[in-house]
Amino acid sequence: MQTEKLQALLTETGADALLIECDFLRRYLTDFYSTDGYVVIRGGKCTFVADPRYFEAAERVLRGTETEVTEGSYREAFGLLAGVKALGVPFPFVPLARAEQLKSEGFSLVNCMPALKAAMLIKTEEEISRIQRASEIAEDAFLQLLPALKEGMTESETAALLEYNMRRLGASGVSFETICAFGENGSIPHYETGTRKLRFGDPVLIDFGCKFDGYCSDITRTFLFGDDGKHEEFKRLHGIILAAHELVKEKVCTGMTGKEADEVARGHLRQYDLAQYFTHSLGHGIGLQIHEHPVLSPRGEEVLQDGMVFSDEPGIYLAGKLGIRIEDSCYLKDGRVVSFMNKTDRGALIL
Amino acid sequence: MQTEKLQALLTETGADALLIECDFLRRYLTDFYSTDGYVVIRGGKCTFVADPRYFEAAERVLRGTETEVTEGSYREAFGLLAGVKALGVPFPFVPLARAEQLKSEGFSLVNCMPALKAAMLIKTEEEISRIQRASEIAEDAFLQLLPALKEGMTESETAALLEYNMRRLGASGVSFETICAFGENGSIPHYETGTRKLRFGDPVLIDFGCKFDGYCSDITRTFLFGDDGKHEEFKRLHGIILAAHELVKEKVCTGMTGKEADEVARGHLRQYDLAQYFTHSLGHGIGLQIHEHPVLSPRGEEVLQDGMVFSDEPGIYLAGKLGIRIEDSCYLKDGRVVSFMNKTDRGALIL
Repeated sequence: MQTEKLQALLTETGADALLIECDFLRRYLTDFYSTDGYVVIRGGKCTFVADPRYFEAAERVLRGTETEVTEGSYREAFGLLAGVKALGVPFPFVPLARAEQLKSEGFSLVNCMPALKAAMLIKTEEEISRIQRASEIAEDAFLQLLPALKEGMTESETAALLEYNMRRLGASGVSFETICAFGENGSIPHYETGTRKLRFGDPVLIDFGCKFDGYCSDITRTFLFGDDGKHEEFKRLHGIILAAHELVKEKVCTGMTGKEADEVARGHLRQYDLAQYFTHSLGHGIGLQIHEHPVLSPRGEEVLQDGMVFSDEPGIYLAGKLGIRIEDSCYLKDGRVVSFMNKTDRGALIL
Repeated sequence: MQTEKLQALLTETGADALLIECDFLRRYLTDFYSTDGYVVIRGGKCTFVADPRYFEAAERVLRGTETEVTEGSYREAFGLLAGVKALGVPFPFVPLARAEQLKSEGFSLVNCMPALKAAMLIKTEEEISRIQRASEIAEDAFLQLLPALKEGMTESETAALLEYNMRRLGASGVSFETICAFGENGSIPHYETGTRKLRFGDPVLIDFGCKFDGYCSDITRTFLFGDDGKHEEFKRLHGIILAAHELVKEKVCTGMTGKEADEVARGHLRQYDLAQYFTHSLGHGIGLQIHEHPVLSPRGEEVLQDGMVFSDEPGIYLAGKLGIRIEDSCYLKDGRVVSFMNKTDRGALIL
């Protein structure tokens, strides 16, 4: 990250230095991923302190960037903080145990998360292009899955094949545990993929995504595995959810609050007396984490701006009967919603 | 979890109630997994507070267990804490932001992690059998991978296929990002799997594992992809690492400290003047998390006991040249080390 941006983070936090241990924040600040390590920011300088497991990789990746690499662990990171009084740490991600330790060393802790959150809310072009790639991989993997679906496959086998497709196509892994629900299992919004076998005529709900260069994608498709003529209610409701999903893309714009965006979909469902079955938020921010800001919910006060990335995922759930959710990852550009998903047909109802 | 165990946790912590938000600890206490939720323990009673996304699933899974399910979120969890003064939270896993909020509500916070850690250190038979299953799946997946390896495959493709095999065989996912390093890439102990293609004669290092019913497995195998006659040094070092690995299984026993266990392997490598290339710990605990206690390292003070699960993973890394690591997941039973791995040949040198 550029020196000016690092200095701005320090100034906005009102701290002499920042100490970051949380993996996705280290990644954001240095563009290098590892499961352990410390990032110290002081006076516009960023140092990555890596233990021997990561030192060689960190050196190789970060050579020529603004980030300096030092071998060591907590002690070495701590050594870079001599003379610091106000130390910025991310309060929502620093464990209480570490905070107590830092306080006992004499630091006064300041929350650097507001400044980091504000910076991370607006994605750079580079970040947008990584999310675009993660989205393309997810969609291509889904398109390769569809012809392979057959009666008797379990939910787990289906999820496994979809994940394999994503990995083969270049994803480093999933962005969250794939949700694959057949039949009535779709009525559990965050269903744990299990052993239910696919039958002709089943509703299928698949919520999935992958990571590319650290960045996440998130997509849900719901459809019928063949038409057994017994799912007229499903078809009717699918049309209503799809309309709510598309209305969000049409009406949501820069300057709206998350609450107003949520209401676009919720208001549409209310017309059909379905809002009470829409039991979650319309959307969440997406980036290095699968759940970030902004929040698009009845309590979302953030004002949406160009460069923000979020999901558009209206859904309804009739317990024990059915669940339908249609989701794209999207972003705001020139005031309007742009979807990252251009390959799969979100309106496709029957496979 | 049984009422007596819950009460023991409260007593040992010295708290009126516990509030747990961290996912793997919720899982440990209730045996139910979700990405969000609150567990409140009070007076030997355990309540899982689930929001609408998880309520139906939680209800279904936890019916008939010791855990009661309530629909709600933070507010409802908080409502269960009326009159509580000393509130136990896990200091290493509760974010500072939450801790500050709880303090402002008048709670005095007590660290419940020592009591939880002590309980979690010793695995029950049920936990052992889940880790056994996660290990069997990982080994079977590896055995299915070997005949599919061919020249020109990338590290990522190889990892993808291995992960697919694990998923197909019943794993819910990986227990950590698969490390697959070809050739000289093995010298980075925590290499980020990339696009290097497999060539005849290459050393191959694969460090992988999966989750079954929430519990992790962890295994590493290093071998040559064919014998090009240019890897005599690799073969010699492989034999030494293998001997160190086996020596741990033979010599480590209940009553030793983590430090003494680590020294069994490190001492062996020292005889060959290789200890300086063994740049990480001998092993780490394994359970619901891939890195738990006990710590088997030069600083490991914990005394090993029956029922503890840990990795045995000596390795050496010659920067830019080669890396060799041989790892099994193991546990202590009747005083001795028992490996979870019984299917793959850890000594196999040439594919």
